[in-house]
Amino acid sequence: MDTLGRQARAAAAHMARASAASKSRALRALARLLRENAAALQEANARDLARASELSAPMRDRLKLTPAIIETAAQGCEQLAAMPDVIGEITGLRQQPSGIRVGQMRVPLGVFGMIYESRPNVTIEAAALSIKSGNACILRGGSEALASCQALAALCAQALEESGLPAHGVQLVPTADRAAVGALIAMPQYVDVIIPRGGRSLIERISAEAKVPVIKHLDGVCHTYVDEPCDEDLALKVADNAKTQKYSPCNATETLLVARGVAARFLPRMAAIYAAKGVLMRCDAESLALLEAWRQSLPPGQPQPQLAAAQEEDWRAEYLAPIIAIKVVAGLDEAMAHINHYGSHHTDAILTSSHAHAQRFLREVDSASCMVNASTRFADGFEYGLGAEIGISTDKFHARGPVGIEGLTSLKWVVLGEGHIRQ
Amino acid sequence: MDTLGRQARAAAAHMARASAASKSRALRALARLLRENAAALQEANARDLARASELSAPMRDRLKLTPAIIETAAQGCEQLAAMPDVIGEITGLRQQPSGIRVGQMRVPLGVFGMIYESRPNVTIEAAALSIKSGNACILRGGSEALASCQALAALCAQALEESGLPAHGVQLVPTADRAAVGALIAMPQYVDVIIPRGGRSLIERISAEAKVPVIKHLDGVCHTYVDEPCDEDLALKVADNAKTQKYSPCNATETLLVARGVAARFLPRMAAIYAAKGVLMRCDAESLALLEAWRQSLPPGQPQPQLAAAQEEDWRAEYLAPIIAIKVVAGLDEAMAHINHYGSHHTDAILTSSHAHAQRFLREVDSASCMVNASTRFADGFEYGLGAEIGISTDKFHARGPVGIEGLTSLKWVVLGEGHIRQ
Repeated sequence: MDTLGRQARAAAAHMARASAASKSRALRALARLLRENAAALQEANARDLARASELSAPMRDRLKLTPAIIETAAQGCEQLAAMPDVIGEITGLRQQPSGIRVGQMRVPLGVFGMIYESRPNVTIEAAALSIKSGNACILRGGSEALASCQALAALCAQALEESGLPAHGVQLVPTADRAAVGALIAMPQYVDVIIPRGGRSLIERISAEAKVPVIKHLDGVCHTYVDEPCDEDLALKVADNAKTQKYSPCNATETLLVARGVAARFLPRMAAIYAAKGVLMRCDAESLALLEAWRQSLPPGQPQPQLAAAQEEDWRAEYLAPIIAIKVVAGLDEAMAHINHYGSHHTDAILTSSHAHAQRFLREVDSASCMVNASTRFADGFEYGLGAEIGISTDKFHARGPVGIEGLTSLKWVVLGEGHIRQ
Repeated sequence: MDTLGRQARAAAAHMARASAASKSRALRALARLLRENAAALQEANARDLARASELSAPMRDRLKLTPAIIETAAQGCEQLAAMPDVIGEITGLRQQPSGIRVGQMRVPLGVFGMIYESRPNVTIEAAALSIKSGNACILRGGSEALASCQALAALCAQALEESGLPAHGVQLVPTADRAAVGALIAMPQYVDVIIPRGGRSLIERISAEAKVPVIKHLDGVCHTYVDEPCDEDLALKVADNAKTQKYSPCNATETLLVARGVAARFLPRMAAIYAAKGVLMRCDAESLALLEAWRQSLPPGQPQPQLAAAQEEDWRAEYLAPIIAIKVVAGLDEAMAHINHYGSHHTDAILTSSHAHAQRFLREVDSASCMVNASTRFADGFEYGLGAEIGISTDKFHARGPVGIEGLTSLKWVVLGEGHIRQ
């Protein structure tokens, strides 16, 4: 690991001063190499799959490197190549009273370490973002994906070399040994930041043991709050999408809050939609009474809603499943208090027609993404226009929410004088 | 400490939504209270000084709360009150292909803890920045300054209350007990970031033990590089100022690098200035030979230069004293390699007339502040137009270099839709 670290640090200095053109050239070369070597990549992947017979079906699915996944990865590299290069950009250059001109230049962080599980194509996502942002990276994929990741990392090194950039700009930890992770997160002399992707326990362990900053993503307990006043048709459509468009992502809504003034009209219509999709509703007493009464009035043949009484732990639950917690609140203040108390500060939305309520929600909800009249499912680096996403941060320090290229950079000060001295 | 933490967290929510006007009102009230209570503040300070008989003279000096220091603190509050409020500012709001509009809103970090030594007026600097940035803070001053800090903190609480803001927005740890520091840096549920100000050992200990991010300032091993080509008169003036304008600040130059092509002409002129000011020059072999020869040619009655042979440790030394390390380098590449290897990534300057060299230096020197034709002494929050400075960061993560209001904030994402759903 010490050798990897030293090589990464040396490569980072080259990457930091690489021209925009050479970085784009490397990304296009990587896209081409991925396509040219699709068959060889699938062979390597087949070796991983053969060793992974004891894995669950979803885990095996995540491990697969299909032609479609390879093509998507290649296209991602090309998209990054076409994006503007932010490294070296100087902002805010202004003359100060002393006469010096002071601004800030965007520069790479240096070396990042990324630790991820299963999906081998994360290797390419991380490598491409690292190249574009002028950093060097050390990647540690899941041990079950080692052959696939090695084949992908070899293409990264080849693309860098072809483009006149250091092959060590992207390195993969070449062993499944778990001790390598412990070493990677404790080399502040070589690694500037660690980005883990995986389950909560992995991320908590890494955060606790790391000797360098960690960009970490913990829970996604996202809320959608249906306000009074609101456009109820809009609210139905958005609250449906926020929960049911896909259940597993961290930005899916887990708790629906409904203002008392609209609950009696809104909740039965909402529950009918969730019932038709088989979503279990875990309700507070008020919404449960309301929905039970509605259920008993349903004509025969209608989809029966699945209703249950919510417990305290439901307000903190990240279901990632067809389950939603539902609560009636007095209005905006109670909704925001609930979100700030029980939420995970990830992504929360208000559905409202009140300008004043929208402004207060945006300002007072302490979450990485605050939304008005939009589905929480939009919280994503691509949807936000970042071009790519290395991860999502639930911290406030450095980067918050979806992390793209800028999260892998820092701003240094530049001072331009003409012989100025301090008086 | 738990009570302080809980109170700070509650106050932070109020501070975050406080209007710009009420924060400015609190800052102006604080300025007024400082002036009205100048006599009482000096009495409290006298109690600290009476207890501090065993302190060294410079330490006692730093402990003093003079009328001039109180007035400067009051003016600082008024200047901050007059500055624009950055909280709630939304930048980069752009429509994405999906139709949602996405931007970033600047919001307070929440609660910061500040640990400092001696100078009691830091209490006001930190409190004022905390109020302006919409954060809450917990301050821990030096134990020898406890009475002074308590008197100052009481005025902060009064100013906040007068202005309709929570008195707990600024709290002082009310004890000299050292265990309080250990508790303060290990309460992630209440404190979002720690800012220590003090000696290296204090900062290293806090960084090692903290359970929250630390904005830290380690060494200031700053370089001035005299390039070929350069305006030698300009270089003399700036290199003189960078070393001798004040010896103790972290942004004073500690190593002078000189391009071989200008060394023979430049170094004797430079050495004559340093000799006249009693600056000891610790030289590499090449500059030593050159300056020894020059010294022997000096006419009688001239100030004799103090010359010594530099050792390896001189290239990493933060003298903070009338001592400078001097080295002749081949040119720009060797200078940058030396700075990136031996420096502390704090502040480094090139004195040059080459546009190309200036651009490369700005881009390739990996320091928080990179300067062209200006004295390293300018690296300071006030000189950079930040309005105030809570500290200087030698890290790359989050804030780099002088840290002002923005370093106490983060950017959250705001998403505006009109019923948009994810496809």
